[in-house]
Amino acid sequence: MGGIGLERLSLNQATVKHIGLEDTVALCVRHDIPAIGLWRDRVAETGLKASAAAVRAAGLHVSSLCRGGFLTRGDPDGRAAALADNRAAIAEAAELGADVLVLVCGGLVPGHRDLGLARRLVADAIGELVPEAQRLGVRLGIEALHPMFCADRCVISGLGEAIDLAMRFPADAVGVVVDTYHVWWDARLPEEIARAGPRIFSYQVGDWVLPLPADALLGRGHLGDGVIDFGPISASVAAAGYEGYVEVEIFNAGIWDAPADQTAATVRERFAVALGGFD
Amino acid sequence: MGGIGLERLSLNQATVKHIGLEDTVALCVRHDIPAIGLWRDRVAETGLKASAAAVRAAGLHVSSLCRGGFLTRGDPDGRAAALADNRAAIAEAAELGADVLVLVCGGLVPGHRDLGLARRLVADAIGELVPEAQRLGVRLGIEALHPMFCADRCVISGLGEAIDLAMRFPADAVGVVVDTYHVWWDARLPEEIARAGPRIFSYQVGDWVLPLPADALLGRGHLGDGVIDFGPISASVAAAGYEGYVEVEIFNAGIWDAPADQTAATVRERFAVALGGFD
Repeated sequence: MGGIGLERLSLNQATVKHIGLEDTVALCVRHDIPAIGLWRDRVAETGLKASAAAVRAAGLHVSSLCRGGFLTRGDPDGRAAALADNRAAIAEAAELGADVLVLVCGGLVPGHRDLGLARRLVADAIGELVPEAQRLGVRLGIEALHPMFCADRCVISGLGEAIDLAMRFPADAVGVVVDTYHVWWDARLPEEIARAGPRIFSYQVGDWVLPLPADALLGRGHLGDGVIDFGPISASVAAAGYEGYVEVEIFNAGIWDAPADQTAATVRERFAVALGGFD
Repeated sequence: MGGIGLERLSLNQATVKHIGLEDTVALCVRHDIPAIGLWRDRVAETGLKASAAAVRAAGLHVSSLCRGGFLTRGDPDGRAAALADNRAAIAEAAELGADVLVLVCGGLVPGHRDLGLARRLVADAIGELVPEAQRLGVRLGIEALHPMFCADRCVISGLGEAIDLAMRFPADAVGVVVDTYHVWWDARLPEEIARAGPRIFSYQVGDWVLPLPADALLGRGHLGDGVIDFGPISASVAAAGYEGYVEVEIFNAGIWDAPADQTAATVRERFAVALGGFD
């Protein structure tokens, strides 16, 4: 019998989208949530130094910074802009002391149907970013997104593909993000998680709720409200050696409209049930 | 330079959902489309013998019957009903002379989150159906559906998984359906198509159109209206030895509302462009 305790819970701030960074920090403190996943736009609102100071003053750990990526621009200007933006993200992750900079790699190259081209651009761009990441001690986490986002958000569509990509780079610099919402359906998931081993830089949890909403980005739910069996996946992640924080990240319009304290309380309760004990 | 000519085009009748079987048969004849993919509900409307007679009289080949499957009921009554329904589908496929009975295997077992359980039930049920399929000379085609349908329609979520499942059974009885709409995102697709080889019992084409509509089932488009690169996938299918008909199957509310003759003309034109020549 294993389990992941509440001392490893992190609240990704996208789960309480309607409040700012400082309010989310205070929310975590009120609900005894020891870590937080930050988003760059909210960090920018508050200011980078003020954000870093706020999380440190509260004693919170920063489990991730979301997000870098969108590396599939084929034109020189677009590509240069994407790389510059990702270098900025790396610097921000370093300042915030984030465990990982999450990379959502980008969809098809505008005007092209060639998936291989998009995937090669992603690999090349990560290769260009690695030295900067290593210099600043920031780990890059490639997130496999659900295949329904392949065309427009992320051409890395399965955990196996993310691992294959990460393996091309040094193990201290590039790994993967395992997000249950994106990978729960994969028949090869247990073997892929085992293969990832120390390359697992982040574990995020959110449920798959039926029916899919009109905006498929928002079809996530509190743990237990959907169909995902968190025990076996979490057991695989634990067996692979992952000892970091586990982020609850839920994009859901109804949850965003709920009072943040109610959401935080539900996040804690459901985490304890879904991840607190598994075979 | 290879290509798939119009002599191998089949129109799946779901593409012209608002007309009945006899009108769809006449439509194929008018547009010089040599084969048709039938649906059981429309066959039942017309009557099995009358349907078989209509396609024969028109000189059409029946490239598939859609569909059997939904094999993930866990309760004895539900399971018995599913098996009986699939035996009926096998008999219908035999009577119609269909190249394949397409299996959409079913989602999670009602009341259960255990994906493995659902997948075991699918495998067991196919095992029970194989003798009847062999007796009647009907081939069962396991269709991998897009992972966004894993929970509620089909727990077989990738071509590799469908192949692994098919390989457990005799090669004359159980194979796979390759549908571009469902599998185009898969980084392992070329290798999996090659591995499937003679197990490819059907090749269906439809495009992935952005944005996803509110009902994700209907997010398909005419070839060329979306993001799928049909050349490389078709080349892989051809290289794997598939020489059967290629079905255009599009679920799209706008296309259903268009005049059927316009749809059929577009299907032909786009097929010639997308599949007529590839490297």
